Amino acid sequence: MTSESAPPYTAVIFTSRRTEGDQGYAETADRMEELAAEQPGYLGFEGARNPDGFGVAVSYWQTAEDARCWKQVAEHLVAQRHGIERWYSAYTVRIATVEREYSGPHRAR
Amino acid sequence: MTSESAPPYTAVIFTSRRTEGDQGYAETADRMEELAAEQPGYLGFEGARNPDGFGVAVSYWQTAEDARCWKQVAEHLVAQRHGIERWYSAYTVRIATVEREYSGPHRAR
Repeated sequence: MTSESAPPYTAVIFTSRRTEGDQGYAETADRMEELAAEQPGYLGFEGARNPDGFGVAVSYWQTAEDARCWKQVAEHLVAQRHGIERWYSAYTVRIATVEREYSGPHRAR
Repeated sequence: MTSESAPPYTAVIFTSRRTEGDQGYAETADRMEELAAEQPGYLGFEGARNPDGFGVAVSYWQTAEDARCWKQVAEHLVAQRHGIERWYSAYTVRIATVEREYSGPHRAR
């Protein structure tokens, strides 16, 4: 997370499997991270992807309503369509409320 | 997730940064996945790690109590200690309630 926030807050867990080849994916992913960071209620983003194409990405929001609004941002809607058409062979979205958190010796970033 | 489950259920989001070298990590990680799958309330596990060592792993449980019990399993407690001492330079654990989910053309696995 780019900023500290005490629970409760909203986490959107996005798991996906990438298709082969970049097809404009990396550029859009960077742009979406930048655009999300400008939205009200944005708390942060964390993601990782395995060499086999399976990835887990989590975005954090102050409220579920903030997360819903981000889903409806015009440029993000275009990216979501390209995601379905080109970039992901499969994906699942989970909307969750973080109720508790703790960190180890250091906070993972 | 290895099995289907309708919300609400619990997600434990574990973000971490790995230290250098394996130091027995891969073997224990496999063993923990196997052991978790035997616990009451286990719904599934999904994880990915970037080449730079940052990873996101999510385990899913029927209830928060199931997730708490898994944290206290003896063999898992040993692994957690090794995690702090050897394998992770930083980590954060978030306990969340999944309230809604949907999948794209196919479910990501």
